[in-house]
Amino acid sequence: MPDQFTTTAQPMPGHVDFVGAGPGDPDLLTLKAMRAFEAADIVMHDRLISQDILDVACQTATLVDVGKAGFGPSWKQEDIDALLVEYALTGARVVRLKSGDPTVFGRLDEEIDAVEAAGISWAIVPGITAASAAVASIGQSLTRRGRNSSVRFLTGHDMQGFADHDWVALAQGGEVAAIYMGKKSARFVQGRLIMHGADRATPITLVENASRPNQRILATSLENLPVDLAAAELNGPALTFYGLAPRDAAQALTEFKKELA
Amino acid sequence: MPDQFTTTAQPMPGHVDFVGAGPGDPDLLTLKAMRAFEAADIVMHDRLISQDILDVACQTATLVDVGKAGFGPSWKQEDIDALLVEYALTGARVVRLKSGDPTVFGRLDEEIDAVEAAGISWAIVPGITAASAAVASIGQSLTRRGRNSSVRFLTGHDMQGFADHDWVALAQGGEVAAIYMGKKSARFVQGRLIMHGADRATPITLVENASRPNQRILATSLENLPVDLAAAELNGPALTFYGLAPRDAAQALTEFKKELA
Repeated sequence: MPDQFTTTAQPMPGHVDFVGAGPGDPDLLTLKAMRAFEAADIVMHDRLISQDILDVACQTATLVDVGKAGFGPSWKQEDIDALLVEYALTGARVVRLKSGDPTVFGRLDEEIDAVEAAGISWAIVPGITAASAAVASIGQSLTRRGRNSSVRFLTGHDMQGFADHDWVALAQGGEVAAIYMGKKSARFVQGRLIMHGADRATPITLVENASRPNQRILATSLENLPVDLAAAELNGPALTFYGLAPRDAAQALTEFKKELA
Repeated sequence: MPDQFTTTAQPMPGHVDFVGAGPGDPDLLTLKAMRAFEAADIVMHDRLISQDILDVACQTATLVDVGKAGFGPSWKQEDIDALLVEYALTGARVVRLKSGDPTVFGRLDEEIDAVEAAGISWAIVPGITAASAAVASIGQSLTRRGRNSSVRFLTGHDMQGFADHDWVALAQGGEVAAIYMGKKSARFVQGRLIMHGADRATPITLVENASRPNQRILATSLENLPVDLAAAELNGPALTFYGLAPRDAAQALTEFKKELA
């Protein structure tokens, strides 16, 4: 029987919290996210997490950057999965920190599958999704009585695979959509929507770096979207609203229409 | 010229923060919401705000309940608007506390209009919307690669006004929708979706009191929704997922289908 003081005991299995970091303003972290940071040994984070949030997280935990860079070494999903499991199996409490809300375009499920397959416990801590922060910054609601009774969250990456009925539904007046990662697909989306009968004057608003000090708002229309987007040179993460104008512009437009009437 | 010490000085105009309370767990409040409570003189809140959150808010501010009760005295929207303006014009800092995210089915715009018309400054503090908390509680994502590249937030109240193309789009396989306040319209929605070709086996999950200690999860199918809903007697606020099953059930179903194959 081995001496209990010299035995290398099997470590207790760890735990993974999949935590939503929100859009970037550290004040938009939840209290639950803060507690997860405090309990964590390791915080594995993506590239889009703001420095202000990393500054909070690193006070009590070790940061590991698994961001997928456009240049330089890029992490594959399976390597992230493997590292997550590896850390947790040492007995560590790991926070897997994702931008916004991990359940919205967060590629969460692959990682949960890996963690669960290794017998590691896990939980999801929701976060403020980019659409909520961006719409607050333009003084609008995602839904509004008498205008739109539903809102869609889409990703620009997947809109190439849209069926006709999706375009038809979106092209109706009064529809509102929040398009994540929609900059590259802007011209394609514009073409399809106009082809399916959307009003060229439909307001489009892009919010770059929502909630961060370098937030910028680009208010345009479906017709002018590609030209205005190219001119604005938005380099940060951006949320595109289809069917929403910033509150001031919307207000001015309403008053202008009243004057014309 | 009046004596400066006896003059009743005009109070400084107040300020209104429209704050999202999240789904009920006080740990899902943002740090920004906490700061808004601390700065507030008055917190005007709806009926759906959890007692745990009111316990936090009342530590530094006076609570005013403007909840619209099913029974007893009910507040009209215009009375809420007027009271909000009245408090702010005394120079008070007011938090207008709304369940979830104020921009999602929060009837926010009427109140902003009133506050703005009175020349009072305001801001929106986003919150965790019910869909995010509810989906986390069933271990799923709102979007998932290879399943659904978009998600819709709808309200059961307005689905009677849906056009055919909306039903057609929703009835496709692989669609996911989060239906707010969908209990009363469950049978109507079931009928329309099946009429438009939806699979009767489409998973439906209701999450009652998401994130609260009395949270309950009802996993059913489009076919069995009305019967199971009646039997479950859900009395609290509930979020209905169309196209999502709780993770364990979904996993078991996948394994069952594999066994059959």
